[in-house]
Amino acid sequence: MKALVYTGDRQIELRDVPEPRPGQGDALLRVEAVGICGSDMHAWAGHDERRPPPLILGHEAAGTVLQGPMAGQRVTVNPLVTCGICRFCLSGRDNLCATRQIISMPPREGAFAELLAIPARNLVPIPDHVSINISSLAEPLACGWHAVRLARQALDQPIETARCLVFGGGAIGLGAALVLRSLGVSEIWLAEPSAARRAIVAMRDRVRCFDPRAGGGPDDVDLVVDGVGLGATRAAGSAALRPGGVFMHIGLGDAEPGLDIRRATLQELTFIGTYTYTAQDFRDTADAIFEGRLGALDWAEAVPMSKASQVFQRIAAGEIATPKVTLMPAG
Amino acid sequence: MKALVYTGDRQIELRDVPEPRPGQGDALLRVEAVGICGSDMHAWAGHDERRPPPLILGHEAAGTVLQGPMAGQRVTVNPLVTCGICRFCLSGRDNLCATRQIISMPPREGAFAELLAIPARNLVPIPDHVSINISSLAEPLACGWHAVRLARQALDQPIETARCLVFGGGAIGLGAALVLRSLGVSEIWLAEPSAARRAIVAMRDRVRCFDPRAGGGPDDVDLVVDGVGLGATRAAGSAALRPGGVFMHIGLGDAEPGLDIRRATLQELTFIGTYTYTAQDFRDTADAIFEGRLGALDWAEAVPMSKASQVFQRIAAGEIATPKVTLMPAG
Repeated sequence: MKALVYTGDRQIELRDVPEPRPGQGDALLRVEAVGICGSDMHAWAGHDERRPPPLILGHEAAGTVLQGPMAGQRVTVNPLVTCGICRFCLSGRDNLCATRQIISMPPREGAFAELLAIPARNLVPIPDHVSINISSLAEPLACGWHAVRLARQALDQPIETARCLVFGGGAIGLGAALVLRSLGVSEIWLAEPSAARRAIVAMRDRVRCFDPRAGGGPDDVDLVVDGVGLGATRAAGSAALRPGGVFMHIGLGDAEPGLDIRRATLQELTFIGTYTYTAQDFRDTADAIFEGRLGALDWAEAVPMSKASQVFQRIAAGEIATPKVTLMPAG
Repeated sequence: MKALVYTGDRQIELRDVPEPRPGQGDALLRVEAVGICGSDMHAWAGHDERRPPPLILGHEAAGTVLQGPMAGQRVTVNPLVTCGICRFCLSGRDNLCATRQIISMPPREGAFAELLAIPARNLVPIPDHVSINISSLAEPLACGWHAVRLARQALDQPIETARCLVFGGGAIGLGAALVLRSLGVSEIWLAEPSAARRAIVAMRDRVRCFDPRAGGGPDDVDLVVDGVGLGATRAAGSAALRPGGVFMHIGLGDAEPGLDIRRATLQELTFIGTYTYTAQDFRDTADAIFEGRLGALDWAEAVPMSKASQVFQRIAAGEIATPKVTLMPAG
């Protein structure tokens, strides 16, 4: 089959590779849409020691089942494979499973490929009225869903009354903003340095966007969701929170200092790291997408996988404004 | 009256100063025991810009009311003065009051003095069977009480099942350990570099002490309580937590990096800054002390205030092993 192989710093190649062999309980899918995540960009740039080349990246997949009881079913893929029996899996925090694996990280190849083998329990059927492209957004949007769910537990007020500041207008940050809006939150600010991306988000999703480099963002916010995860966003977020506020940290941008430890202590800020989503979060997010609760989600731009090399370069150069580019392996 | 005045870097002087004038709603106390806090040491060393000289330090006070309806009553003092009407006061988070004041920080003088004026609502009566010296521990122990209360809300398991690691064998860290023990927690580790202090704590309070510089501390803990607040303790604590664990940060040691942001994100650690206690926490802590639930608390060493200058030097030099030194202003 054709697959996009990350071969070394800033290099990906479309190659012929052996087809995956489904194991016990696995389904075999034809991948029809697969999003490019910030973590794929990070790996491609040679900055993720967890993803050594050569490796097939990509973990935001949707497609059609080719074999077995679900054959012919269109599905979106939860890429996180967990054991189901450890203390974390049994307590509903399966995203913390001690032996968790995610596709696109060894030992599992990713979904930038024509075919993917994945446990059948990781598949969520797509209703007929929803496109494959939109369905592949379930993965990044589930990250925001999960962070917002944990934020509701940590906040000392009903979330619909919270003044919220989100960093990052990609699918993680924007997704968190859309989840907040779906819960009835009225005041949502989105910090995004790209004017072109701000224009897309402001027009299509009516979220209050601003350029964090220009100032003018909100202060005294109840909740920060950081979909970027840089020292700069941690610094800005911990400065913007009101006493007792909550900081949800999703992004893995860098490990620099930034969180204001002294203010966090004197003003009782809560800082919560979040990783992916539970299986239940993933299903709930998919349902919300399918029912239209997260909006039209019409901003994801699909491009043929054969153009991936240029697309990666253009994303890295900041030349692509849309919050999400998805690859079509058949193209 | 006699008061101990902080006059500049590492300088305190016993001086004659004007007596405090009680305002509306204030009680006037004769201070009989007042603990030396790490923050007093920090200010004395010239490291706290919130406490400029000349200033009377000290905020861990107990004594006897001299005037008014409570005259003759022995009391312990909640030193945090809050407005009672802001959103934080009204929601039970009065420690975050926007106009909070604490004695020993301008505009309020502290309690290293023969007399103290303080709102009568900040006083908690002491039962006859409890000493003034032990009662003055209510303030530092309430800090640990508050942190543990917030930890119970944040943990995903009953606290009595939690494996706990506490940093610091002073009254903050030890207090948190004693609060944990009072709740039925069986596995409590206390990291304390001073061998002499470890000996006191191990003997009197049967807490499992270890030297963090020597290794051998626990890993895979559910809860960390940091009563020190240095980059080194944040680093060690964030390394020792299990996935999904909770880090309660009380200490204000420094503002250096230390918290492992990448691990906090990938393993969903929760980091919560805590500041002092609510008025309810303070009363609850005092009740727990009075009822003996926090142990004998017989480690606080009382010295006459006239010896304060030497005592501060000896504490700074690490020559005093007890978790708490209290000053007796009459002495």
